[in-house]
Amino acid sequence: MIRIGVDIGGTGIQSGIVDENGKITHKTSIKTSINIPFEEQISNLAESIRQLTLSAGYTEADISSIGFGIPGIADQKTGDVIKCTNMNWVNVPLRAEFQKHINVPIYIDNDATVAGLAESAAGVSKGTSSSVFITIGTGIGAGIVINGKVWSGAHGIGSELGHVILKLDGEPCTCGNRGCLERYCSATAIIRMAREACTENPDSLMLKKAETLDGINAKIVFDSAKEEDPTAVKVFNYYISCLAQAIASIINLIDPEVIVLGGGVSKAGDFLLNALKKEVPQYVLFNTLPMPEIKIAQLGSDAGIVGAASLG
Amino acid sequence: MIRIGVDIGGTGIQSGIVDENGKITHKTSIKTSINIPFEEQISNLAESIRQLTLSAGYTEADISSIGFGIPGIADQKTGDVIKCTNMNWVNVPLRAEFQKHINVPIYIDNDATVAGLAESAAGVSKGTSSSVFITIGTGIGAGIVINGKVWSGAHGIGSELGHVILKLDGEPCTCGNRGCLERYCSATAIIRMAREACTENPDSLMLKKAETLDGINAKIVFDSAKEEDPTAVKVFNYYISCLAQAIASIINLIDPEVIVLGGGVSKAGDFLLNALKKEVPQYVLFNTLPMPEIKIAQLGSDAGIVGAASLG
Repeated sequence: MIRIGVDIGGTGIQSGIVDENGKITHKTSIKTSINIPFEEQISNLAESIRQLTLSAGYTEADISSIGFGIPGIADQKTGDVIKCTNMNWVNVPLRAEFQKHINVPIYIDNDATVAGLAESAAGVSKGTSSSVFITIGTGIGAGIVINGKVWSGAHGIGSELGHVILKLDGEPCTCGNRGCLERYCSATAIIRMAREACTENPDSLMLKKAETLDGINAKIVFDSAKEEDPTAVKVFNYYISCLAQAIASIINLIDPEVIVLGGGVSKAGDFLLNALKKEVPQYVLFNTLPMPEIKIAQLGSDAGIVGAASLG
Repeated sequence: MIRIGVDIGGTGIQSGIVDENGKITHKTSIKTSINIPFEEQISNLAESIRQLTLSAGYTEADISSIGFGIPGIADQKTGDVIKCTNMNWVNVPLRAEFQKHINVPIYIDNDATVAGLAESAAGVSKGTSSSVFITIGTGIGAGIVINGKVWSGAHGIGSELGHVILKLDGEPCTCGNRGCLERYCSATAIIRMAREACTENPDSLMLKKAETLDGINAKIVFDSAKEEDPTAVKVFNYYISCLAQAIASIINLIDPEVIVLGGGVSKAGDFLLNALKKEVPQYVLFNTLPMPEIKIAQLGSDAGIVGAASLG
């Protein structure tokens, strides 16, 4: 029997066969677009999975389950996708529609949750029974595992770490509220902080590297801070202080075995990790006791497929 | 077989026999003091539990387990109390010492966790498999239940909701950090807000009721807001906005079936609850989908004993 994971993105869908060790043995992808009707998208996807299965020497009867990771929210019970903006899906019966083509058990969850599960099943948090995975990119997403099981909430609306309030009455967020955690801890937040700092300090190395304010990205901030540009160091330190307080809040509330950092910002690796390890404990209430380890995610872009397959 | 719950407080210890429906059938208490040595406190407690058992017509052999709720932090694995300021206990072997007197399985957890478990076992959240209990008093505590089990964290340092950051760089907290949630959502917070408001508006009904700034308490703020004193209404509305954002953050992150409010502030009942129910949804990311119910705790001062017994 084989398990298949499907990672749904905005412009393409990646599918893969995942073995018992969480390794992808065979992989395929299709392009898609929000202009293609839902039924046709699913029909195309089912066909590509059928081809993948056959090319790997299996038949449909060998598939034990297919898991989907979506950039949105699903009802795990019905298998309906409630909202998936990138695909223009609102209240679509993903499981029911897919099963018209390949009739096997179908599981669906949020992509950050799925990536967290992947790290827990086959990545850096393998062997732990609780973890919080934080994906730090344009926004902030999370995947929570407790007692070895994904926890997306009783109504499936949890693990939306990006919209936990970190600063009452703070920066306006795209969600309509103010002070959401992702306004202070995402790549978008670093870029905002760096642009503000460069407006006041136009001599900053960041602006030299980026040429224009619009050209500043998270990597430029980290690189400039490494090179000890004073303005970049200041931005980096404030960003670390925000992210450390967010991580310490997760520890004070959930206290998982391990906290895993993924997404674009986590590519800063040890530079980010060492700064956080130094800063986080001061915000943890019981900081003389053992506390969660903070680690960088291992699986990279494979996490979507591996985690989706692990839902089964 | 009977289960016994022990609720450890600063000046007294309450113990009770709890039946299968979560009702206390027999109850006793002893006074204690931080000046009595640990071994003597435990010896006195064991003796009172022995008497309780006998007076109820049982023997020690009928006790299946004894659970302890402590205002502090314990290592559930070793049964040691790591810190319990009210009793002046630091790293004491509570389980081992108690078992010298009555050798039965012993469970220990934080008092807010235990009260949350009580509501889940026999109170307002009975029948649910996930809940977050928030006790709102001088500080803020929490008890988290997920998949029918208490979750105090992988290292036992979780569910410290009071020290989750709600306002980056905000009010200084007793813990040494700034902007902790309990600085904005506890009874202490309401009182601070009311005193600040009365300093600017000395005509407020709150000050008439309290006579002095020092005399203001949470009940006076709620009563004055009910009587539509404009300054009290303003304080109440801001407090509700803070607490609503804290509750919505719990929903966005954990999304339990139900959120239960306990502690002194919850005595404001429907006045508090209705204001929160109106305010919380705007801060929930997926607020067009079903979301956790918010309820007032039912068990009051019995929660400590009932929850401690339920640890077994």
